[in-house]
Amino acid sequence: MSNKLTPYQTADWLKTQDDFLIITHRRPDGDTIGSAGALAQGLLELGKTAYVLRNPEVTPRYIRFVEDYYAPDDFKPKNVIIVDIASPDLFTKNAEMYKDNISLCIDHHKSNSLNADFICLEAGRASCGEVIFDILMAISGSVSSATAERLYVALSTDTGCFSFGNTTANTLFVASLLVESGAPNKILNKHLFRSKTYSRINVESMLISGLEFRFDNKVAFAVITKKMMETAGADEDDIDDITTIPTSIKGVKIGITIRELASTNECKISVRTTPPYDAQAICAHFGGGGHKLAAGCSINNNIDEIKEMLCAVLETMI
Amino acid sequence: MSNKLTPYQTADWLKTQDDFLIITHRRPDGDTIGSAGALAQGLLELGKTAYVLRNPEVTPRYIRFVEDYYAPDDFKPKNVIIVDIASPDLFTKNAEMYKDNISLCIDHHKSNSLNADFICLEAGRASCGEVIFDILMAISGSVSSATAERLYVALSTDTGCFSFGNTTANTLFVASLLVESGAPNKILNKHLFRSKTYSRINVESMLISGLEFRFDNKVAFAVITKKMMETAGADEDDIDDITTIPTSIKGVKIGITIRELASTNECKISVRTTPPYDAQAICAHFGGGGHKLAAGCSINNNIDEIKEMLCAVLETMI
Repeated sequence: MSNKLTPYQTADWLKTQDDFLIITHRRPDGDTIGSAGALAQGLLELGKTAYVLRNPEVTPRYIRFVEDYYAPDDFKPKNVIIVDIASPDLFTKNAEMYKDNISLCIDHHKSNSLNADFICLEAGRASCGEVIFDILMAISGSVSSATAERLYVALSTDTGCFSFGNTTANTLFVASLLVESGAPNKILNKHLFRSKTYSRINVESMLISGLEFRFDNKVAFAVITKKMMETAGADEDDIDDITTIPTSIKGVKIGITIRELASTNECKISVRTTPPYDAQAICAHFGGGGHKLAAGCSINNNIDEIKEMLCAVLETMI
Repeated sequence: MSNKLTPYQTADWLKTQDDFLIITHRRPDGDTIGSAGALAQGLLELGKTAYVLRNPEVTPRYIRFVEDYYAPDDFKPKNVIIVDIASPDLFTKNAEMYKDNISLCIDHHKSNSLNADFICLEAGRASCGEVIFDILMAISGSVSSATAERLYVALSTDTGCFSFGNTTANTLFVASLLVESGAPNKILNKHLFRSKTYSRINVESMLISGLEFRFDNKVAFAVITKKMMETAGADEDDIDDITTIPTSIKGVKIGITIRELASTNECKISVRTTPPYDAQAICAHFGGGGHKLAAGCSINNNIDEIKEMLCAVLETMI
């Protein structure tokens, strides 16, 4: 069991330590990248030595917010911090070696099952970035514009630019302070939310025309095949957040996106729900996890079989 | 010339007056409707008599935020207040009779050219709702959940759920206080931003797969045929705002949507541009008009011919 710390206690602990390596999760999103970049920047401003472990899966969309902090190959950390990582299978390959020596875990996933010396887990926060914000404010009472920019990326991407159901008064309040502190929200919003590649909208179009509805249209299945990705010339960046499409349709309560992975025979399943349906409970049947309204798992089978496996679970819930 | 008031002065003036009729603008958006509903609610809570003039053009999307305050036919106001109305041609037909007797104009448009006894104009605000918030806070120091809900509609719709370039730290700060005061942001966001009809996303999908790019992909043509509308079972409401899709694609500077009209042989052309390209100049060639970045015209021809006609004009500009 990890020792629980509040953000204030975490701030105190960080002040007494040094030589930090910060680790982000597999298939990194804006929250893990923004949180890591902001924490590194905040610790540097405190006079500490702090780096982020290179994430080999980071996409062009997010790399600019973290690459300046990448650790040199010969860096030997005294303390390893992981951000926004809720389970052991979310480590990248090059992070595996640190798995059993985590000093501090900072997260907002209720389901967090990590083993670390200390854990700062604030499950009521929409993003890990909000937890980082609380910690950095406890350290110095303010955030620099470089920190604010990265935290804005974390908050805004994890909440769909403040439109998802996880957005709280605190999220908006912190976002306001970040913009006040110099986060260039106009530029960031255009970059993150208001422009799409042609490949992206092509995948969207194919995904929509392949939608399949079940249980009186309460469940929508979307599929992203390897062939669709090829045809559209799409990469990881292009399909970021695309899993929100099925539940954006009126009447759909559970939206499930099944994606063929390029490298393995597995499919990645993303489940998005509206209350009272529990995405985490659905994914738990297949060894996955996440939040109540957004969860994921992997299943080693073909798409049609996977749909039937999921329907068998859904039947007991709907 | 109208006498300028700060939000504080406006609050003081409102306290001394009574029997208010609040007027919203033509083709009402969330800002004018939310502002009117919130102001009416706030004035009622202050013990005043306050109504909103029925807006005959309000859509199902927004009516619930204002209809409870509609004035009875025989109401004789002592004070007429207009909200979010920047020019005289934005009055609805049933509001024309009040045009020369405006007591107070509350707005955030720099270009405001209205004549009123008093004007409270805060051009730095992203929405009129933020000005109403300042006024109501100056009156009572808090907002009720009913008021907060309507103000949230105003702020969020005028900023594309806080993603447009007009969003400021103040917008986010006020939004945070509104959520804290009981604005049901999860429900409102779902209603306003995160739900589309199946017909809508079907038309989107067809529109995307039919996109045609010209001039090194700087120009994108989208087409909406009668057959597409039929196939998708789509109505006018379903294709609201769909003309923004072509210019949301990276690299596209001029997005042109050509729509076959159901009733005539004409096509309706919507042109959306990013600076320095002038949508109005393009449409002027075909007898149309609009704004610099968004304009329209009608052409009586088939879709392929229309594309060539437009390309002939674009050739001189690009």
